[in-house]
Amino acid sequence: MKKLLAEFFGTFWLVFGGCGSAIFAAGYPELGIGFVGVSLAFGLTVLTMAYAVGHVSGAHFNPAVSIGLWAGGKFPAKELLGYILAQLVGAIVAAGALYLIVSGKDGFTDIGSFAANGYGALSPGGYSMTSALVAEFLLTLFFLLIILGSTYPKAPKGFAGIAIGLALSLIHLISIPITNTSVNPARSTSQALFAGGDFTSQLWLFWLAPIAGAIVAGFIHKAFFNKD
Amino acid sequence: MKKLLAEFFGTFWLVFGGCGSAIFAAGYPELGIGFVGVSLAFGLTVLTMAYAVGHVSGAHFNPAVSIGLWAGGKFPAKELLGYILAQLVGAIVAAGALYLIVSGKDGFTDIGSFAANGYGALSPGGYSMTSALVAEFLLTLFFLLIILGSTYPKAPKGFAGIAIGLALSLIHLISIPITNTSVNPARSTSQALFAGGDFTSQLWLFWLAPIAGAIVAGFIHKAFFNKD
Amino acid sequence: MKKLLAEFFGTFWLVFGGCGSAIFAAGYPELGIGFVGVSLAFGLTVLTMAYAVGHVSGAHFNPAVSIGLWAGGKFPAKELLGYILAQLVGAIVAAGALYLIVSGKDGFTDIGSFAANGYGALSPGGYSMTSALVAEFLLTLFFLLIILGSTYPKAPKGFAGIAIGLALSLIHLISIPITNTSVNPARSTSQALFAGGDFTSQLWLFWLAPIAGAIVAGFIHKAFFNKD
Amino acid sequence: MKKLLAEFFGTFWLVFGGCGSAIFAAGYPELGIGFVGVSLAFGLTVLTMAYAVGHVSGAHFNPAVSIGLWAGGKFPAKELLGYILAQLVGAIVAAGALYLIVSGKDGFTDIGSFAANGYGALSPGGYSMTSALVAEFLLTLFFLLIILGSTYPKAPKGFAGIAIGLALSLIHLISIPITNTSVNPARSTSQALFAGGDFTSQLWLFWLAPIAGAIVAGFIHKAFFNKD
Repeated sequence: MKKLLAEFFGTFWLVFGGCGSAIFAAGYPELGIGFVGVSLAFGLTVLTMAYAVGHVSGAHFNPAVSIGLWAGGKFPAKELLGYILAQLVGAIVAAGALYLIVSGKDGFTDIGSFAANGYGALSPGGYSMTSALVAEFLLTLFFLLIILGSTYPKAPKGFAGIAIGLALSLIHLISIPITNTSVNPARSTSQALFAGGDFTSQLWLFWLAPIAGAIVAGFIHKAFFNKD
Repeated sequence: MKKLLAEFFGTFWLVFGGCGSAIFAAGYPELGIGFVGVSLAFGLTVLTMAYAVGHVSGAHFNPAVSIGLWAGGKFPAKELLGYILAQLVGAIVAAGALYLIVSGKDGFTDIGSFAANGYGALSPGGYSMTSALVAEFLLTLFFLLIILGSTYPKAPKGFAGIAIGLALSLIHLISIPITNTSVNPARSTSQALFAGGDFTSQLWLFWLAPIAGAIVAGFIHKAFFNKD
Repeated sequence: MKKLLAEFFGTFWLVFGGCGSAIFAAGYPELGIGFVGVSLAFGLTVLTMAYAVGHVSGAHFNPAVSIGLWAGGKFPAKELLGYILAQLVGAIVAAGALYLIVSGKDGFTDIGSFAANGYGALSPGGYSMTSALVAEFLLTLFFLLIILGSTYPKAPKGFAGIAIGLALSLIHLISIPITNTSVNPARSTSQALFAGGDFTSQLWLFWLAPIAGAIVAGFIHKAFFNKD
Repeated sequence: MKKLLAEFFGTFWLVFGGCGSAIFAAGYPELGIGFVGVSLAFGLTVLTMAYAVGHVSGAHFNPAVSIGLWAGGKFPAKELLGYILAQLVGAIVAAGALYLIVSGKDGFTDIGSFAANGYGALSPGGYSMTSALVAEFLLTLFFLLIILGSTYPKAPKGFAGIAIGLALSLIHLISIPITNTSVNPARSTSQALFAGGDFTSQLWLFWLAPIAGAIVAGFIHKAFFNKD
């Protein structure tokens, strides 16, 4: 129960802080935080909560991470469903909190695309479905290689939260133009629910590609880097 | 006494560095540091002084933090008043030093809104009082969850200063557009005293919301994450 | 074999993340990540994979690093060829993945200069061949001094990944205007293969200068800082 | 001797990387690194070399730091002169290397103000001599409090390099508009020698204010925080 609460709070913070930084800053093209600021924000949500509740739940905050850790033999299958549900609830409640705040803005009419993920016509830079699939697959694969490697017993103790958090910042620095960056089905779902329309019909990709990448990373780690 | 001096220096640095970075950079819209630079500056004031005097006073630098740690059972009630006074004095003296420097700028007429916090007409992005209350409450709540969690005995040793400092950077990346970001009644008071006018009459929110969020976080931590 | 795979993945990530962040962001001059974002991205590829596979292969991801460590007496000559080949293959496969993604962008015609390195007419800021030689030599020399020093037994344990990753960010903050920053022959080769034309004929400099700087650093470290 | 060489390399890197990032990026007002990038660069020069040679020389790279550590009772008077000379030589040689590179830029005519420090008419934002004195005094005072505090035996082990390096970044985020940020007489001297003119006649302030701030910090630390 304590673990599920930690996952709820962590995923709330990831969506509230990461997506929120993008949503609230959208009105400031000049002085605003730009893609660098949003990238930092996403990574710092994970870095901060990893040190806060990592010793409670392992700090996944992402269904693809839980599934990748299971594929790598580091997380029991019987805890998967609870973790994923807690992550989804946390992400969706956070999206609700963002809606509550942004709807109080002077001159607010609608949330537009919120911070939803998309490809093709909904990709920020007009990248195709194939580009989006390849990018989300590869980025989540490396995200999991970093998670599995930096938490491995032979890696330096205590630094995994820094490596994993900054890996998520790096992933956003690379791929905001491609898909607005998911690598996290809970984050994508929470935004698509509010953005609606075509974003909902594209949601499948942001479950499929990250989870496939995570599973392949789990197998790679188990086959090659989990040997001594 | 040594503790109060550490809190004085730390809160001076938070206001001098965080608010100062915003005030001095305001004249450079092109090359300047923008919201990302100000967010980094606030966080780095806490990160740096946490390593410098954390072993002396615990490095609160913020009345809401002291009260949240008390609510979480980690700080004695009898030290609260002294800490809060030292923080207020440090913040106000820092605001005076900022005034001294900025008034020596060529063409200086008045300080405008300094780096004061506000809502409604005084919110940078025009966010309502309700939006400001929700944002300041939630952000301080998570700030305290991160402080209480990362300093918990089971968390990795030594990393709390990084997690807590970067949490404050993240909080600014999210909410400068909403309230100019407080989560710290001492910081808000120091700026409102110099900015005057309506900023003073809005000061209540930047005491109420952060302290309420901090107390709730203290209770959540005590109830769920302080068990073994 | 496990080591070569780690070098393959690490160098793939360096090119995919570092060069990719520059290539994908090129379409966003206003909100994009600029030179600061690209600098962070390059450094974070090394920081993240250093914690993920540093305990496997030492995390070189760069022929000049492998050669500099050999010159400093920290890496056996007989492993050099395998490491360099694995790094080259990882870098080139990553460039291929970048091509696959970017060619799916709406309105794509050609990759232009990709993220290739150059001097003279191909230098971003119009710097001469001599400027490029001096810059790449000195920057790689200091990169290796930092690598050799921060992994020295008397340096604080566990922090080398942070120091080395952020050193690469710093090197990019300095020298993107000069050569688009190499200090890494594998990274340069992977981009020149796709950019073609004059970039290929300038490739010699991005093997010569980094390797010369790395060897001198190895000798300096061995002569002066490797004594107790 | 090994110590002086470490100070030479460290101060070279501080000037080459910090001042260099500003000089080379000056031609890129749009995509360039701005004040945030320059602030990061200065801090990262110290962070990286602190981990590389901190165990050799203590990683001062700054006459004010050496003098402040002496005032705080942490550095012997008899080593002061050698350290300060090594720092000055490193800084000046680095400025020469920057001149060599920048003079190879297409269309180069003169170096303008290099990255020199100034007040009044030479302050980037037009700040008066008094503003510059107060800012440089206070910033160096806190820089030394952070150095003395984070290297104190009761502070977390190994983290001082991060705290001190990022403190220098923070100091630049605050004060580039005021004096172009010194807090380091060696850095200021190296640039004034090349920039010449009025910059040389203002150099006294960038020796006086940082050293005064450092000495006061040394006494504060010794009197209050060096007690158990």
